[in-house]
Amino acid sequence: MIRATIYNEYVQERTDAASLDFLQGWGEEAIRGIAGRAGEVLRAHPAGAIHATLKQALEECDDIRVRHIATLEHVEQELSEEVLADTDVLLWWGHLAHEQVPDAVAMRVRDHVQRGMGVIFLHSAHMCKPMGLLLGTSCTLRWREGDQERLWCCAPAHPIARGVAPCVFLEEEEMYGEFFDIPTPDELIFLGAFRGGEVFRSGCVWNRGYGKVFYFQPGHETYRSYFHPDVRRILQNAVRYLSHPELRRDRLECLAV
Amino acid sequence: MIRATIYNEYVQERTDAASLDFLQGWGEEAIRGIAGRAGEVLRAHPAGAIHATLKQALEECDDIRVRHIATLEHVEQELSEEVLADTDVLLWWGHLAHEQVPDAVAMRVRDHVQRGMGVIFLHSAHMCKPMGLLLGTSCTLRWREGDQERLWCCAPAHPIARGVAPCVFLEEEEMYGEFFDIPTPDELIFLGAFRGGEVFRSGCVWNRGYGKVFYFQPGHETYRSYFHPDVRRILQNAVRYLSHPELRRDRLECLAV
Amino acid sequence: MIRATIYNEYVQERTDAASLDFLQGWGEEAIRGIAGRAGEVLRAHPAGAIHATLKQALEECDDIRVRHIATLEHVEQELSEEVLADTDVLLWWGHLAHEQVPDAVAMRVRDHVQRGMGVIFLHSAHMCKPMGLLLGTSCTLRWREGDQERLWCCAPAHPIARGVAPCVFLEEEEMYGEFFDIPTPDELIFLGAFRGGEVFRSGCVWNRGYGKVFYFQPGHETYRSYFHPDVRRILQNAVRYLSHPELRRDRLECLAV
Amino acid sequence: MIRATIYNEYVQERTDAASLDFLQGWGEEAIRGIAGRAGEVLRAHPAGAIHATLKQALEECDDIRVRHIATLEHVEQELSEEVLADTDVLLWWGHLAHEQVPDAVAMRVRDHVQRGMGVIFLHSAHMCKPMGLLLGTSCTLRWREGDQERLWCCAPAHPIARGVAPCVFLEEEEMYGEFFDIPTPDELIFLGAFRGGEVFRSGCVWNRGYGKVFYFQPGHETYRSYFHPDVRRILQNAVRYLSHPELRRDRLECLAV
Repeated sequence: MIRATIYNEYVQERTDAASLDFLQGWGEEAIRGIAGRAGEVLRAHPAGAIHATLKQALEECDDIRVRHIATLEHVEQELSEEVLADTDVLLWWGHLAHEQVPDAVAMRVRDHVQRGMGVIFLHSAHMCKPMGLLLGTSCTLRWREGDQERLWCCAPAHPIARGVAPCVFLEEEEMYGEFFDIPTPDELIFLGAFRGGEVFRSGCVWNRGYGKVFYFQPGHETYRSYFHPDVRRILQNAVRYLSHPELRRDRLECLAV
Repeated sequence: MIRATIYNEYVQERTDAASLDFLQGWGEEAIRGIAGRAGEVLRAHPAGAIHATLKQALEECDDIRVRHIATLEHVEQELSEEVLADTDVLLWWGHLAHEQVPDAVAMRVRDHVQRGMGVIFLHSAHMCKPMGLLLGTSCTLRWREGDQERLWCCAPAHPIARGVAPCVFLEEEEMYGEFFDIPTPDELIFLGAFRGGEVFRSGCVWNRGYGKVFYFQPGHETYRSYFHPDVRRILQNAVRYLSHPELRRDRLECLAV
Repeated sequence: MIRATIYNEYVQERTDAASLDFLQGWGEEAIRGIAGRAGEVLRAHPAGAIHATLKQALEECDDIRVRHIATLEHVEQELSEEVLADTDVLLWWGHLAHEQVPDAVAMRVRDHVQRGMGVIFLHSAHMCKPMGLLLGTSCTLRWREGDQERLWCCAPAHPIARGVAPCVFLEEEEMYGEFFDIPTPDELIFLGAFRGGEVFRSGCVWNRGYGKVFYFQPGHETYRSYFHPDVRRILQNAVRYLSHPELRRDRLECLAV
Repeated sequence: MIRATIYNEYVQERTDAASLDFLQGWGEEAIRGIAGRAGEVLRAHPAGAIHATLKQALEECDDIRVRHIATLEHVEQELSEEVLADTDVLLWWGHLAHEQVPDAVAMRVRDHVQRGMGVIFLHSAHMCKPMGLLLGTSCTLRWREGDQERLWCCAPAHPIARGVAPCVFLEEEEMYGEFFDIPTPDELIFLGAFRGGEVFRSGCVWNRGYGKVFYFQPGHETYRSYFHPDVRRILQNAVRYLSHPELRRDRLECLAV
């Protein structure tokens, strides 16, 4: 049984501004703005949260179980050493509050990936701290809301593409376009094409130590990409591809011989 | 001075069917069809041939000279050992008659690339013999005439992208789409996005021995892509990037020590 | 059950010069020389042939069966379309007689790899025709008999390295040294270090279309590397890693849309 | 004129323990130990410091000037924004005191590399903070003092290898061996072979944003590798290859369109 953990920022789904008090220093107006737009996010995620949508998507598979859910509010405890040690693959969705994630948590995630944990960074997680620590580039890109995406497979023999159509059509998706400032992917699997004419390396794998990183572009908070059967298949395939508990190390050290 | 050589099939530019007699076995009807459509090709190439257009494009640069032009009709002599030995970078445009190129010529080109010559395969050359010999894959793809292309740069620090806009708009271009069956490029520089929604790895470099291979997607015979200043810049940059006479070897051999 | 096929040149194991008559044009003296040294090869391969040693190595695993053995003498029939279509992974050992393999057989192997068959090129197969067709480089190197090798793993998370020691010591092995003229490997797994001070990229994977290529350096005909348990593990792991019958295609074609 | 800057820890060259007072918290005994062994370091670096040796090596070239020297003691000022903005290529030598480098300095170096500065990490700098931030792996390895190294070129067409012998013999060098936990290099140029039988990816390039990273293994503090003409050539070539002032960016940002 593959042990998945989902981190979701869990900010944009909250209709109750008071529940966002933990975002100290953001100001009342900003927080009321977020809460005011939460209805639109919840329409896309009827189970009440992006992590709930993702959990349902993964647990369509008998061999994957979501063992832990973590959100920004309590991320220090919810992505503790113990939780990560109990995780084969971590999924990470974040957007507005990357800076609120403590450095120590980001470094903890990086360390576990280097020692064998898989990590999947979703959509706007391209700017999150652990992705920056693992890739070493700025991960900047060009973007625009309100587009649609065709996801083309450029590596049809790759395990993450198994059973996925050559072209997956996403009726609504945010445009992310090149230049996407990432290291050369070890495996480039999907290219996204947008109605506005842009193109993007939408599905990429990098090896880092004993673990693997998968970045996957779709998943804007107000769109229903994670309900598309091919997108779900990609997420499920990716969890399987990144899960390698047999490779997990306790520590990485220089070895005097 | 960089020594360029251009191979152009030089079939589709001919309005005189009789001049295509060397295409033995193609049948009168096929050949008359080609000649009948030549006017459209010539409208795109007022200098009379694709190789003439390419020569003009390269010779905008003071440091590049086209030393040799070769066409299918006399390719055995025009891409002789002597011509290739006198070539720093070979450009190759072909479309209908890849099979008519003798195996010996394809192997000669491959051998010179391995020993340090650069080669640029343009557009429909993706199915030509020397490209197959150098890459080892089928180079098959999906295609459709009558589209338009946006060429996005995904490696803005690459020498071939110097001075080129982040997005080059080609009013008319043939669609080539993924899955493009190529080896993982050593350097992926351009991604093409088409109006029809497809996407393509349109500019790729591979190292082969002491030489380099650049594949560049634009250049359908009836369109004017090679007159676009950014496309010309890309071709000129590529010729410079692939030219390394100082690396040229006379032969490659296993060395007993 | 994984279906393996072994091609072995099967020249250097023959003590009976008359049985080498099929090597037309080699001359009596050369052939008697080969036959005269066969005893040394047979001492290393008590089952009578390199293919017999390899078959034993693979069939230690319950999930691998060697369905076909092919040798140079009858290679045209023994690596027919039918045999390759019945093969998930082909192993190729050859040394003296690469040129005797018909071009049609080499192209057939290349085509099946592009369509999903795995192929493992062993030791002196680096100069064989299908490897050249699949990689596109000269595959030349530096070499010397009578050395010993330490095989270091530089990708301990790779499936081919599972259960293999960080350093495998091969008491006797032929030295193959850099510069090894190969394309950048998609996956570099083993580096070989030789007593004489040379170093080599000894275990490399390349993707080609729907199939994979693995080159593995050990295996000189008079040494017992294929009896080393870690080398056997590597071969077995590689067969599993390269076997993907579900990806097999009947043909690869450009697709007009 | 290429503008180089050298960072050298400048700890192990000091014979005067009192001058190491800035290493607060290391304890008197440790510091006296370092000072006591400084004579051996100075014998290898008669100009008085590793940075002085490196400066001489680079300034053999008319087109390279060392504009700034920075050492740990004043690194915050000596690798300021202004200094890095005035640097095309930074060389980094450190060993004992990686942790003493402030995080802010490491992040500043990373940011400048992403925006176009080149950086060369030398020898024991594999564990320094900016290298970890740029590569995202642990950079751990196996090691032993008192060995010798043969540096083999596995990319003879690479600009960093121009004019360098196929094998460079270093009479004395520290052994660094695989598994070296780095991302797949974009360009693997040198492999090191050690007398003890180990092997190492000794010269690697990675692209990061608009800049490039070169890691080069030789350079233990008590050995004279940086006086070897081929090693000097490698350093000079690398400085030229990594210098791209024309690519330098002021900032990297996501771009809403």
